[in-house]
Amino acid sequence: MNTYALTLSYEGLDFSGFARQKDDHITTVQGTLEQALATVLRLDTLPQTICAGRTDAGVHALSQVVSFELPGPGLDTTQCGQIVRSLNALTPASMSVRDLHLACGGFSARFDAISREYRYYIFNEPYPPTFAGGFAWHVPQKLNLDALRYAADYLLGEHDFRSFCTSSSAPAEKNTVREITTIEVLEHSFLGEQLITIRIVGNAFLHSMVRIIVGTLCEVAQGKRTPDDVLAILAAKDRSLAGQTAPAQGLIFHRVEYPAECFIV
Amino acid sequence: MNTYALTLSYEGLDFSGFARQKDDHITTVQGTLEQALATVLRLDTLPQTICAGRTDAGVHALSQVVSFELPGPGLDTTQCGQIVRSLNALTPASMSVRDLHLACGGFSARFDAISREYRYYIFNEPYPPTFAGGFAWHVPQKLNLDALRYAADYLLGEHDFRSFCTSSSAPAEKNTVREITTIEVLEHSFLGEQLITIRIVGNAFLHSMVRIIVGTLCEVAQGKRTPDDVLAILAAKDRSLAGQTAPAQGLIFHRVEYPAECFIV
Repeated sequence: MNTYALTLSYEGLDFSGFARQKDDHITTVQGTLEQALATVLRLDTLPQTICAGRTDAGVHALSQVVSFELPGPGLDTTQCGQIVRSLNALTPASMSVRDLHLACGGFSARFDAISREYRYYIFNEPYPPTFAGGFAWHVPQKLNLDALRYAADYLLGEHDFRSFCTSSSAPAEKNTVREITTIEVLEHSFLGEQLITIRIVGNAFLHSMVRIIVGTLCEVAQGKRTPDDVLAILAAKDRSLAGQTAPAQGLIFHRVEYPAECFIV
Repeated sequence: MNTYALTLSYEGLDFSGFARQKDDHITTVQGTLEQALATVLRLDTLPQTICAGRTDAGVHALSQVVSFELPGPGLDTTQCGQIVRSLNALTPASMSVRDLHLACGGFSARFDAISREYRYYIFNEPYPPTFAGGFAWHVPQKLNLDALRYAADYLLGEHDFRSFCTSSSAPAEKNTVREITTIEVLEHSFLGEQLITIRIVGNAFLHSMVRIIVGTLCEVAQGKRTPDDVLAILAAKDRSLAGQTAPAQGLIFHRVEYPAECFIV
């Protein structure tokens, strides 16, 4: 058996999330990808894929990484390139396989990841976005980005992020400590439409953590809460005290990092 | 009567071009906008709108400007803002009104324009784009941007662009001389997907001129033609010698410029 790493992008709107569901009629990223891999590689059973970051329905990915094992000798670069082209011919336009290569034995896209980056895009104009409509949250009221940055700094470092996690997925005994290494607020032009970009990098993330952080920071930027409220919310370890979950369409799983040795085979 | 200037964005895919068509069942930008204006302003007849740059089916606009006249006293900034919000509530998500204001009497979005800027976006990777799919032309073969820039420079200045114009729209007697003041080739990130951007500014453009220029320059960048071929194509004044018309979805009518005095009322 050999282990492979596959990188793919997808537009979240077209999928009911990453994870395969029991009902095969529900279109998921994992289901679509595994079926395409089985067809292209002529496998009798679907390969078991593991992803770097499970995304919910509507959430996009730029560089999602997926690992899986295949029987037979290791495929070389040319063979991998042909498989990528075949996969792209087979999968819908809302999914694009960017790369496939051999990884070291036992590589796991999930457990070997050392950092993950998410980006959340906000369109902050009184009129609605046109081009960025499917990729951004439209917040018409002017946001105070200085207050947003001030509040964001409180989240840097290692904390128990229980308040920033969907409550059903965090039973009392579960470890909800994570480390955020970067939160940056940038402005990007998206075909001429200006987007506020909240860039969050950390070791790992809880369910809906980025969206609850963004929803809370936006309430600070709208003056509904003070930056210091974020400290109190963190300390309370209570989801009900944090802000709303920002909508899925503004979130992109941007990239994931692995130790270089994972790919020295 | 007072004259107004309205700025709007739209996603081309959802419209059969800008220009209203005789068949009211065909969805056009102009038809949708005029109907929305009549509803919001409670007009008995549709206002007659004039646009800065007519776009074909599938072509997008970031800052299209439209002029029209309205009876009654001049509307102030607050009233204009309310009308913009009402128009956005009424029009589909693929259209967004950004601004409305009073212009000087007789202002024409078309005839008063002193320069127009188009941007053409190309995704130049072996795999297909995900986020930029609806806004870029996917060219999988690596493009030589130095050759593209070299060829583009031949198009700068005042020329007879008959070779770069849909032949049916250029009868022998029609003036096909236009001036291009800037052609720049830039690289932009679109939510992390790198796009080659061809930025073209000129006084006015012929039918399909930008798309035929881009199609021809891409053939140079693919090594199918030399940069010097562009000189020969210009001189020949024959559409059949130029390259293909690049697809509509990569083109955005980016902005238009007017003398400041058009808006001093």
